[in-house]
Amino acid sequence: MFTLHPRLEQDTFLIKKLEISQLRLMNDSRYPWVMLVPERPDVTDLHHLSGTDYAAVMQEIREVSIRMEDLFSPFKMNMGALGNLVPQLHIHIIARDKEDDAWPGPVWGVGEARPYTEPAKNSLLEKISKTI
Amino acid sequence: MFTLHPRLEQDTFLIKKLEISQLRLMNDSRYPWVMLVPERPDVTDLHHLSGTDYAAVMQEIREVSIRMEDLFSPFKMNMGALGNLVPQLHIHIIARDKEDDAWPGPVWGVGEARPYTEPAKNSLLEKISKTI
Repeated sequence: MFTLHPRLEQDTFLIKKLEISQLRLMNDSRYPWVMLVPERPDVTDLHHLSGTDYAAVMQEIREVSIRMEDLFSPFKMNMGALGNLVPQLHIHIIARDKEDDAWPGPVWGVGEARPYTEPAKNSLLEKISKTI
Repeated sequence: MFTLHPRLEQDTFLIKKLEISQLRLMNDSRYPWVMLVPERPDVTDLHHLSGTDYAAVMQEIREVSIRMEDLFSPFKMNMGALGNLVPQLHIHIIARDKEDDAWPGPVWGVGEARPYTEPAKNSLLEKISKTI
């Protein structure tokens, strides 16, 4: 049975459930940063998904990337599946700008997360969930 | 017309051409690190590919990830499409180990690349191209 990894539970908020994945918002207001967590137990890597699940998750990534780009008009979208610290498969989709804290490097491991205020979080969850 | 970005030309070696992408080896012997560069002009992001090309490139990513994992038995595979410095679409696939120079962080921007010797490069190009 799929159970969300406690670290992902702690660091992210559920936006909505897609066909295969939970779409979640990273609690770091420095970047528009969402995450797809396929609801498949014991999977650590994209290429370990079944062929059918892989294709479906890849379509979710495409759809979410398009919507995030529409919503935030970033300079660049970043996508990555690392999982070096949290083994449960999760795919990062991040809208990047030339003025953001980590530019032009990757966002992972840079400084401290800046959590959303409750109103900012709720407004963003609504904004993203309405579009995707 | 597609032309490889000069920075990618400089930092990587061609392993072989797949259906859509060039499969290239990063000239950094610290990690088994390959890159897919879809031969499509003026594309910066995966989700900007046509639906057909996107699905095909995603299958290439899957196939290459599986082969790289078979070849190098890493602790974890990392996959990412960033493009903050080199805008031409390229997808990194990296076999990671707990003892590598950047673990558990991402590899990008960490220290200096350690170029392959000519024999090491040739042997690795042959090893990977025979398998993929």
